[in-house]
Amino acid sequence: MKKVLIYLLFQFLLSVEFISVSENVVANDTSMQHRNLNHMTREERFSEAMRRTLYALKVLLPREGWTPVGPEMKYLARAIKEFTFIIHAGVFIPCIMSYGTNEQIAKWFPLAADFRIIGTYAQTELGHGSFLRGLETIATYDRANQEFIINCPKITAMKWWPGDMGKSANHVLLMAELVIDGKKYGMHGFMVQIRDLTTHEPLPGVTVGDIGAKLSFESVDNGFLYLQNVRIPRENLLSKLSEVHPDGTYIKKGNQRLMYGSMVRVRVNLIAHEIVMPLAKACTIAVRYSAVRRQGLINPSKEEVPVLDYVAQQHKLLPQVATVFMAHFAAKQLVKMHHDYSLEVEKGNTSQLPELHALSAGMKACLSEQGAAGAEIVRRACGGHGYSCGSGLPFIVNRMLATCTYEGENTVMQLQCARYLIKCADQAKKDKLTGSVWYLSDFSNMSCTAQTFGDLQEPSVLVKLHERRAKCAVQHAGKKMQNMVKNGTPAHDAWNMMATLLINAARAHIMQYVVGTSVTYISELSCSASLKKILTQLCALYALHNINSNCGDFVKFGCLTSAQCDLAQEAEFNLLKQLRPDAVGIVDSFDFTDDILQSCLGAYDGNVYERLFEWAKQAPMNKTEVHQDSYQYLQPYLHEGRDVLEGRGRNSKL
Amino acid sequence: MKKVLIYLLFQFLLSVEFISVSENVVANDTSMQHRNLNHMTREERFSEAMRRTLYALKVLLPREGWTPVGPEMKYLARAIKEFTFIIHAGVFIPCIMSYGTNEQIAKWFPLAADFRIIGTYAQTELGHGSFLRGLETIATYDRANQEFIINCPKITAMKWWPGDMGKSANHVLLMAELVIDGKKYGMHGFMVQIRDLTTHEPLPGVTVGDIGAKLSFESVDNGFLYLQNVRIPRENLLSKLSEVHPDGTYIKKGNQRLMYGSMVRVRVNLIAHEIVMPLAKACTIAVRYSAVRRQGLINPSKEEVPVLDYVAQQHKLLPQVATVFMAHFAAKQLVKMHHDYSLEVEKGNTSQLPELHALSAGMKACLSEQGAAGAEIVRRACGGHGYSCGSGLPFIVNRMLATCTYEGENTVMQLQCARYLIKCADQAKKDKLTGSVWYLSDFSNMSCTAQTFGDLQEPSVLVKLHERRAKCAVQHAGKKMQNMVKNGTPAHDAWNMMATLLINAARAHIMQYVVGTSVTYISELSCSASLKKILTQLCALYALHNINSNCGDFVKFGCLTSAQCDLAQEAEFNLLKQLRPDAVGIVDSFDFTDDILQSCLGAYDGNVYERLFEWAKQAPMNKTEVHQDSYQYLQPYLHEGRDVLEGRGRNSKL
Repeated sequence: MKKVLIYLLFQFLLSVEFISVSENVVANDTSMQHRNLNHMTREERFSEAMRRTLYALKVLLPREGWTPVGPEMKYLARAIKEFTFIIHAGVFIPCIMSYGTNEQIAKWFPLAADFRIIGTYAQTELGHGSFLRGLETIATYDRANQEFIINCPKITAMKWWPGDMGKSANHVLLMAELVIDGKKYGMHGFMVQIRDLTTHEPLPGVTVGDIGAKLSFESVDNGFLYLQNVRIPRENLLSKLSEVHPDGTYIKKGNQRLMYGSMVRVRVNLIAHEIVMPLAKACTIAVRYSAVRRQGLINPSKEEVPVLDYVAQQHKLLPQVATVFMAHFAAKQLVKMHHDYSLEVEKGNTSQLPELHALSAGMKACLSEQGAAGAEIVRRACGGHGYSCGSGLPFIVNRMLATCTYEGENTVMQLQCARYLIKCADQAKKDKLTGSVWYLSDFSNMSCTAQTFGDLQEPSVLVKLHERRAKCAVQHAGKKMQNMVKNGTPAHDAWNMMATLLINAARAHIMQYVVGTSVTYISELSCSASLKKILTQLCALYALHNINSNCGDFVKFGCLTSAQCDLAQEAEFNLLKQLRPDAVGIVDSFDFTDDILQSCLGAYDGNVYERLFEWAKQAPMNKTEVHQDSYQYLQPYLHEGRDVLEGRGRNSKL
Repeated sequence: MKKVLIYLLFQFLLSVEFISVSENVVANDTSMQHRNLNHMTREERFSEAMRRTLYALKVLLPREGWTPVGPEMKYLARAIKEFTFIIHAGVFIPCIMSYGTNEQIAKWFPLAADFRIIGTYAQTELGHGSFLRGLETIATYDRANQEFIINCPKITAMKWWPGDMGKSANHVLLMAELVIDGKKYGMHGFMVQIRDLTTHEPLPGVTVGDIGAKLSFESVDNGFLYLQNVRIPRENLLSKLSEVHPDGTYIKKGNQRLMYGSMVRVRVNLIAHEIVMPLAKACTIAVRYSAVRRQGLINPSKEEVPVLDYVAQQHKLLPQVATVFMAHFAAKQLVKMHHDYSLEVEKGNTSQLPELHALSAGMKACLSEQGAAGAEIVRRACGGHGYSCGSGLPFIVNRMLATCTYEGENTVMQLQCARYLIKCADQAKKDKLTGSVWYLSDFSNMSCTAQTFGDLQEPSVLVKLHERRAKCAVQHAGKKMQNMVKNGTPAHDAWNMMATLLINAARAHIMQYVVGTSVTYISELSCSASLKKILTQLCALYALHNINSNCGDFVKFGCLTSAQCDLAQEAEFNLLKQLRPDAVGIVDSFDFTDDILQSCLGAYDGNVYERLFEWAKQAPMNKTEVHQDSYQYLQPYLHEGRDVLEGRGRNSKL
């Protein structure tokens, strides 16, 4: 199958997500071209990101006739390597829409959408992230002035981490404990101005700044915010779900579950942008480089081979390429589910929230850990040059690592997912389940009848295996806990002690969901047989790689025999061999421009070595032949060495 | 058991490696105190590292009466976070000693040992790392002038990566293909001057510089070096193993195997310094922080708990703490083996080289991947604050990641180890093996009789299990290849296709070595029963964690039944519970000063939040309240926002 053909087919298939129109616009605009980020300080990168983002929004968008809420924003995000206002656009604005009344939306949305105010969403505190009930910032109602008085009662209550907060934002959507007449009413969202709109200086009572360097996100001003007796008008309580009357009466309005909606929405959307997209970039770089890099011999009597010919290399790279696709298909399904849920919410029905919450939490956790691990695997597969920032890979990996922690720390997310699964498994003893957990009430035969490695490449067999393993993992954890409780352990202690089994159950659930939805998605696609074949191979590779990486579970739970484990390995090796010839074509189909990849190893022309050398020469360390700042310390000793070598000094150490 | 007691016991036990004398000297010298590295540019860090290193060597050492080759250097390396001349001191000088004649050593060693010349070891090229025969730099003998002419015939032949080469070194120990009268004689070491000793400018024909930013090692000037017709005198061929007479006659002298000795030596030594030490730092930070950080409830009716009380957190941290100890014990054994080998070499006996090479290659690979993964696990276990550079963890993780690639890329190392194992397994069919592979000819009963989780905590049982699993993994890979060859596949293709099984076999071999040597080491220790108990628990935890993480192998190969896998999990959970109370005491015993750790999370006083805030305030981004460089882009839009909010402008987006 020709590379060009695959290329065209993938273009067609993925055109909605992987479009290049905006990229061409960006690539052809000199104000948008990337400077070399690795040669800049953090402060320069922050300013440059601000410049580019505002240029894109204020110049490029109107010129092209795009809107800030249109689909082009998504493509722009793909084309711009470093941009700012992620939290402003992705959380602050949506939260105004979710928590605000119509009047509040009318006031704040146009300002925020036009970047005429910059806001952030301030929830996490220095002392508390995952445990929301532990947040300490309070908003006390002052009836006399019809104001709320915001306070961080101690240092741990300081808001910490919100993106765009350190230096950019002049407003925050602040989550704080509402207190009226000494009584606590739980977390509520408040609109709080933190900087002067003329001078941009912090307002009285506001201590705000940047939290310092991080593993990545150099261009983002994640911030701290300490508030002391900051007063805001009563109308600044976002009041869609509850309001405080002038006399201090507290009124709940509507379904309080809607509070959780925004967290779910962020998790649903981040999979495509912060996991699938960067992993696709990393794979593009590593696969292209592995086709160019020649190292060593397979056949001692032949010449050096591209490292992609080594099965060990294929085994590192191709399962990650497969992950790009399957995570993409599963994320599409999750987005659809969230969309359906949103329509139901408008009718007042939030009954799907527990399932959607469990699925989005579990999927965010499992795919972010898979994605980050996968990006690191492909980075390391590029050897020494993958360690150089010139490869573009360190940037991608370090950024993906953040997805394991933000928007719900992964372990916390997995345990929340597991809690839902344990409940469902219990319910499955009585009822037939539907939706994503239907398999927990499937009592059909457990054993796998595969006898050849070909049998184990069958999509239906792979789906069944994942369902069985997931069911066993959930039941196993549940049973262990029940036994402990029977033997007198309090339920909460049993939960704590079995945490690693519960996490394993959550992972197994998500894997079966990803494999199951991908198989369905691919089977329903109307596309050429040759394209469908490749997608089916990638799907089987993803599933088999997962089975082989976790074969302990599959054997222990009786899903596979030892002999079948051998076949599963053979099946994976066979797929690597089949996919090898198309590997470059498949990653080319992701269609990233060189400007987006910013990688000496992954450029389309394959001129790896020339690009590395050119890139290195531009490093600030090479501005002069002699690096004076360091040489000043070295010089006196080197001159002693010179004198010895030129016969004028003594060679002292003998 | 009291924390203080453990502390003292560990001090006693580990005093040879974990000494604090030098650290106190460093801590009390204001010229040596660390500036905040995260707030410095790469160039500043490079200069600062140069200043500190030279101050330590030239001022501190003579003042304290220490010598550059004495044991204090090791302690200094522990005390100094960023230092330079790693390759100069760790590779350049030892290679002069290994490859040079007595006359050459007399000339170069005193200069290098006194840092009156700065050298590096230049082997890796832009186009070739692992495959030494692929290196392209050539040294052609010019009989008329009795000189060698050094050339990089193309861009891929450029030397690339050597530490200290970009801006510091004025000499390199260059590995190049020796050519006499058109005939190639293989890789040889040449002493090549690259910079002028007075001006420090590159010499004619020399293009040298820094290779640009990397994932870590900000303070090291890894360099590129392109040589065109650079002439060096005939005497600059390091001639311990071979020499070129004036007339061009090439003479081999002594055992050519000695060439490999220096690579083995570097790998043997790096485990202690670049894996055990940084992992111990990361564990100290994460365990201390987890004892301070409170988040959420285990018992809903009680108060918030330190995150270290969560079994999921213990399961992340404590196995890594155990790894510190077991890797330390195994590394000690390897160092001893290398020392014994060196004594044999002096008698002309290099017969132990294949075993030592396989073991050091495999151990470097397996422990570096375990160490880097472990450091990342504990970093992530610190949640958002672990993502901040203020935690000190990103620095440690990114640096440890390099150990997976340098000094022999891990996959290449594992396959070299596997090649030795496959050979030994073949030999075991006829002969009884000894040394580290003895177990391959152990044909005793395979099945494990453990019936309780306590049985699976027994050191002897854990050792046996690891031996059996390793033997099966080696035999399994060997048998698969044999079958392929029988069916007509060429042996080299079979080797390639079974690479992942071979890598697994190498890992299994090293794991059994680490567990086996640790058990022996601990049992032979003369120390208190309470200390021995904790070390035994840590050892069992290490072994069980490894079994549970790889239980697929153990079940598939019939080493454990499914029911025994359950017991192995229980045994691990039980050990976590037992070790929890001593966790902080154990990491305190590593005895790192706050200055060494450079971590807001890991400081001895536990004032995590105050330190994070103080650290953040010092960030360059916070020098001014308004960050003018970025604000210039934002201001016009914000003033529009102000006008709307103050009633003077139009709210356009409705």
